[in-house]
Amino acid sequence: MTLIKFIEIVAILVGAFSGFIEARRKRMDLVGVFTVAFIAAFGGGTLRDILLDRRPLFWVTHQEYAIAIFVLALIASPLIRTLRHIVSERLIVIADAVGLGLFSIAGVSAALDANMPLFIASMMGVITGIFGGVLRDIVCNEVPMVFRDGKPYAICAFLGNWMFLLMGLYTSVSHDFALWSSALFISVLRLITWKFDIQMGR
Amino acid sequence: MTLIKFIEIVAILVGAFSGFIEARRKRMDLVGVFTVAFIAAFGGGTLRDILLDRRPLFWVTHQEYAIAIFVLALIASPLIRTLRHIVSERLIVIADAVGLGLFSIAGVSAALDANMPLFIASMMGVITGIFGGVLRDIVCNEVPMVFRDGKPYAICAFLGNWMFLLMGLYTSVSHDFALWSSALFISVLRLITWKFDIQMGR
Amino acid sequence: MTLIKFIEIVAILVGAFSGFIEARRKRMDLVGVFTVAFIAAFGGGTLRDILLDRRPLFWVTHQEYAIAIFVLALIASPLIRTLRHIVSERLIVIADAVGLGLFSIAGVSAALDANMPLFIASMMGVITGIFGGVLRDIVCNEVPMVFRDGKPYAICAFLGNWMFLLMGLYTSVSHDFALWSSALFISVLRLITWKFDIQMGR
Repeated sequence: MTLIKFIEIVAILVGAFSGFIEARRKRMDLVGVFTVAFIAAFGGGTLRDILLDRRPLFWVTHQEYAIAIFVLALIASPLIRTLRHIVSERLIVIADAVGLGLFSIAGVSAALDANMPLFIASMMGVITGIFGGVLRDIVCNEVPMVFRDGKPYAICAFLGNWMFLLMGLYTSVSHDFALWSSALFISVLRLITWKFDIQMGR
Repeated sequence: MTLIKFIEIVAILVGAFSGFIEARRKRMDLVGVFTVAFIAAFGGGTLRDILLDRRPLFWVTHQEYAIAIFVLALIASPLIRTLRHIVSERLIVIADAVGLGLFSIAGVSAALDANMPLFIASMMGVITGIFGGVLRDIVCNEVPMVFRDGKPYAICAFLGNWMFLLMGLYTSVSHDFALWSSALFISVLRLITWKFDIQMGR
Repeated sequence: MTLIKFIEIVAILVGAFSGFIEARRKRMDLVGVFTVAFIAAFGGGTLRDILLDRRPLFWVTHQEYAIAIFVLALIASPLIRTLRHIVSERLIVIADAVGLGLFSIAGVSAALDANMPLFIASMMGVITGIFGGVLRDIVCNEVPMVFRDGKPYAICAFLGNWMFLLMGLYTSVSHDFALWSSALFISVLRLITWKFDIQMGR
């Protein structure tokens, strides 16, 4: 298994678990737990692909992820309890930050492939990174957390997306280097802002 | 009028009425009543078609349904009162169960036409069957009922969808037989779980 | 700058400001303020284009609007305070009514270009005119205002859309005359219903 595949799996699972937790908090049944987890994991990329008119969707060509989330949803309650004992909050934040970096830059890349202008491409990257959580919160009848907690989550993605775009425009580094360094930049920036509990002004 | 057309009309009307009732409960005006009924009736199939990138949408080629819902929305309040006197809850549940069966299998069928893999096709069938109600509840600012009431509504659709898929893979029965028997299976299963008030564990 | 460009800009800004105000009321941060304003400004046209399968989306080919809303979101709080002093409610209602007329008719026109039947085209016009606000309210976890305030906002758009459709069918006036007179009709009707505080019955 390649490194990028491993990161992808971990990032999808972290998204799905955020859905498990939110759905259980809302006392949802199996159907709700699965659907909310699915939306949390794939909602951002799906919205981006609908806006860009890209098909097939990621989870259509990788139905193994949908099946995995379905199986995990069946054991969501004991799973959440078990994971709370063996996985620290720190580890979840790290995995989520890695996923944010990877998915945001993948979103920008997809938007550039579809000939989007620069600012729109940077937005598509942020949408990919955060709208899974936004749609999860809407389905759970909450004001989306990422819109109100004042933490620079989307901002980290936005800055890294521009780093990626500007490296492509103004430097001669390879596409791969630009992609990985920008994704890493987002992840590290997110972890720094988390570590020092940095808040945006309102 | 063919049988399938009759079932289709009844199922769409049942969806629309669920929207009328929910919208009136939220004290919505004519615009809200029409929109919520329209979303309840067509939201599931529309979301499926957007995900599959199928056009034209069902209600675009059948604008008579949109017009019918519009006319009914104009008289929604007296209509609801009248129907409550002459139509029993039992009849509504039966009509809804028939619609669930028909639309779920139609959704699976559409997904197979679009070359979806099996698990995704079974999901598309469930989406077709339940997301009208999900979107109705989101617009009405409620946690979707089908995600939290613990009743195996979506599960019935899911099981019937797999019956349809497996009959196509492993038996030599005709497509029509597979389609109708699976739709009937969903409807009957739904009615049994309703009759005996069967709940999923959480 | 042409007149239509000027109206377009004003109408988009009015939509965005409705998002700024709603997002601030919900105590959202910069990310929420920008996203809600963006959805309020472009949500209706985007939903219409997804339903019609039209690409590229308006805001993709006009990224300057997205950039403008982003810049304004950075100064949303002082901006709202300042505008409340120098812009009367009357002026906002007028600008909004002009936008409603323009966008509704533009929506009908786009639907006719995509060969939609008449009733669906009239609905697409209303969707273009009102769903920015609907999606804004859903993201802000509110029952959409336009569905419950009993004011004939969508009705004005609906009637004007039919004026446009019928002029095209049954008169020999030019397309431009039909378009502008119908948009003007919507705006004036909206202002009359506002001035006399006309309510729909429920």
